Amino acid sequence: MSAAQYKNVTINAQASISYDGRCSSHTIMFEDGRQKTLGVILPCENLVEHYQFITNTSERIDIISGECEVQLHGEEDFSYYRAGQGFVVEGDSGFNLRTEEIVQYVCHLEG
Amino acid sequence: MSAAQYKNVTINAQASISYDGRCSSHTIMFEDGRQKTLGVILPCENLVEHYQFITNTSERIDIISGECEVQLHGEEDFSYYRAGQGFVVEGDSGFNLRTEEIVQYVCHLEG
Repeated sequence: MSAAQYKNVTINAQASISYDGRCSSHTIMFEDGRQKTLGVILPCENLVEHYQFITNTSERIDIISGECEVQLHGEEDFSYYRAGQGFVVEGDSGFNLRTEEIVQYVCHLEG
Repeated sequence: MSAAQYKNVTINAQASISYDGRCSSHTIMFEDGRQKTLGVILPCENLVEHYQFITNTSERIDIISGECEVQLHGEEDFSYYRAGQGFVVEGDSGFNLRTEEIVQYVCHLEG
């Protein structure tokens, strides 16, 4: 599980925005150089079949609110994840995510 | 203008969500007890005439991306604000905000 709070971090005031704002995330930086992103994803609502995310470094994504289905690149099927669960994505890869709920996540950049 | 980054802060992993996720904000806390919120507001898009925000303490809101129109409680008209501009709202008051763009802001809680 993710901590409810992160201390002694640096945060960019501006969020990164995609899908017309239906996906947004803030990057936080720790003193040791690690980075995480805190994200909000709105329901697909027939506006988009699923969101596509690309990874550079490997990432661990913990769902902290809501539920969704995730298809890692190279996998045939979507897997279900809800708050308290997470998944790992390799670097130079990506995943598709679909949801009918508002999803919040913490992405741990591990590269 | 707002700083591009805030250092040595504590941040809640979860965002506060309203209007079905069309308004979201993360609270950041400074060592001296001050708090700010970093917010993302999506276009009203005929889904809502304007968003309504209520204040407890007095707030200064700096628009850091996009543009919007704001009507403070007690004012008859909406005023235009764009990135780089801001406005002050009294405590125990509020304002209405309408926009056709994605707006990002920093809210300085001054109470």
